Amino acid sequence: MANKGRLLSDLGEFGFLARLRTLPTPRRDVALGIGDDSAIVRAGGRQWLLTTDALIEDVHFRRTWDTPSGLGRRAYAVNASDIAAMGGRPRFALLSIAVPKAARVAELDGFVRGFAAAARESGCALVGGNLSASPCWMVSVALVGELRGIALRRSGARAGDSIYVSGHLGAAAFGREILLDGRRATPRATLAWRRPRARLELGQMLARTRSANAAIDVSDGLWSDLGHLCRASRVGAVIDPERLPLARALRGLEGDERLALALGGGEDYELLFTVPPQRVRRLEASARRLSLEVTNIGRVTTGRALRLAGVSASRARRLTAGFDHFRQ
Amino acid sequence: MANKGRLLSDLGEFGFLARLRTLPTPRRDVALGIGDDSAIVRAGGRQWLLTTDALIEDVHFRRTWDTPSGLGRRAYAVNASDIAAMGGRPRFALLSIAVPKAARVAELDGFVRGFAAAARESGCALVGGNLSASPCWMVSVALVGELRGIALRRSGARAGDSIYVSGHLGAAAFGREILLDGRRATPRATLAWRRPRARLELGQMLARTRSANAAIDVSDGLWSDLGHLCRASRVGAVIDPERLPLARALRGLEGDERLALALGGGEDYELLFTVPPQRVRRLEASARRLSLEVTNIGRVTTGRALRLAGVSASRARRLTAGFDHFRQ
Repeated sequence: MANKGRLLSDLGEFGFLARLRTLPTPRRDVALGIGDDSAIVRAGGRQWLLTTDALIEDVHFRRTWDTPSGLGRRAYAVNASDIAAMGGRPRFALLSIAVPKAARVAELDGFVRGFAAAARESGCALVGGNLSASPCWMVSVALVGELRGIALRRSGARAGDSIYVSGHLGAAAFGREILLDGRRATPRATLAWRRPRARLELGQMLARTRSANAAIDVSDGLWSDLGHLCRASRVGAVIDPERLPLARALRGLEGDERLALALGGGEDYELLFTVPPQRVRRLEASARRLSLEVTNIGRVTTGRALRLAGVSASRARRLTAGFDHFRQ
Repeated sequence: MANKGRLLSDLGEFGFLARLRTLPTPRRDVALGIGDDSAIVRAGGRQWLLTTDALIEDVHFRRTWDTPSGLGRRAYAVNASDIAAMGGRPRFALLSIAVPKAARVAELDGFVRGFAAAARESGCALVGGNLSASPCWMVSVALVGELRGIALRRSGARAGDSIYVSGHLGAAAFGREILLDGRRATPRATLAWRRPRARLELGQMLARTRSANAAIDVSDGLWSDLGHLCRASRVGAVIDPERLPLARALRGLEGDERLALALGGGEDYELLFTVPPQRVRRLEASARRLSLEVTNIGRVTTGRALRLAGVSASRARRLTAGFDHFRQ
């Protein structure tokens, strides 16, 4: 009975998702079920990626934070990022929208057109939709991606791997803070939040060249997502805070504030991945050739601990507070 | 500007979906985009069905109307019905759930387990999930179905086709009324609402035997869904109210109340399909062999009007009021 009355806010989103993984596992055509950025299924002699994600008004976004079309683009990108994290290409999209009865047609039109345009730009077709009434805007996206090569999973990291992250960290979370505050700011200051880019090219390169042992996208925050990856791989990690590629937008902030945004802020939608020693050179050469920015920020360790090199435990806790919808 | 300020409640769900169909049409691998029960895509030398649907608390259901597991089963069935209406088999499911922070873990567990069990029973694997915080329960489902044979579309009906419907009509809407009223009733009285069955076997038979020119599932209500089918096919229809297979649960009601539930009530999740004259005998023989109940209720006509045989226009309007979330 104690368990029966337990609230989701006690368990947390990740706790609940961990329980889901205990569902009876499916079949030979399901190569990877619940628990990674996308599922991997086999059909018609090929591998496909399936993923779904929802964006809820006033939880994930406010409608005043961008144009309807911009919000539609963002809804596509954050879902495509789950395909990128597995090394795939988005092919087909389904868009389920629920809005209040008083929603404006122009706003809905803008959202759908922004979503469809962003999808098209990365080779993905919006093929199905659904519209319901609801108390607030709620958008749920499902993507089907194609996978060539070996999928990037969370679970393949090994002690000794170098840990890499793409792009720069912290600007999206900083942009979200500006938007939350309602501060006056240039559109540029919030651009990183409003226009995340799914790292599809990088993910595909990693899958094609088999450069990475494990990968995840940085949605909850670097530290939190590193934790998911390490738990799935049963390893630990040490991150060198000096090497974190901090976004230029954070330049005016104090050192620890910048680190906290980079480590705990989330919504960067960069890829975090681990590379075995013998593939580091090739990975760096491939990244240079494709002009993809990647930075070595630490390494995978034995044991299960995540550490920040040269940072005390209490300071590390402050710097790495992650994002869990149900615990905030 | 007049258009810019237009509310969704003026346009209605179906009006908005009609606009979506004007989006630039995709590619050779998209055989059928937005506008039918499922999209049809080609991948790996096969045809696949993709569909998404959402269930919103206090719009589509109340949490008190069934056990969490029962609601999970229902969420699967109403989505599987969109695969049934195309003649396919559900293969993979994605489940995106948004709930308030105070949601109980046991309730969520029950919902997911009910959903997964119902999926498994029809050969479908739940492969991905997502959980968010939101002001109310919102469940969005995406299904990938497999299609062998020729898809059943809404758009193939021709004048002269016989119109068939499976099973019985009206009991789900009657059950919903009982639940809405909060009347005391036996569980049996609301069973048709709580446990719709996707007509997968019938849909597959129709696709395999090429018996139907067009099909749709009865979700909004027979009259409303017949309208969708006829608009897509650019035809009209005449329905014989005497021949409608009214559910036994309606026996205690007045004649017009029964007809209104059968025609306008919705949520029956039966299949409505049209059969060309030369295939009627074979269809009826196949249905008998598989013990699938189907009833000839009218025929497709030229022109675009929908008529109820022997019923005045004003009485017909009362009997056929459909369901549109944004106009109620």
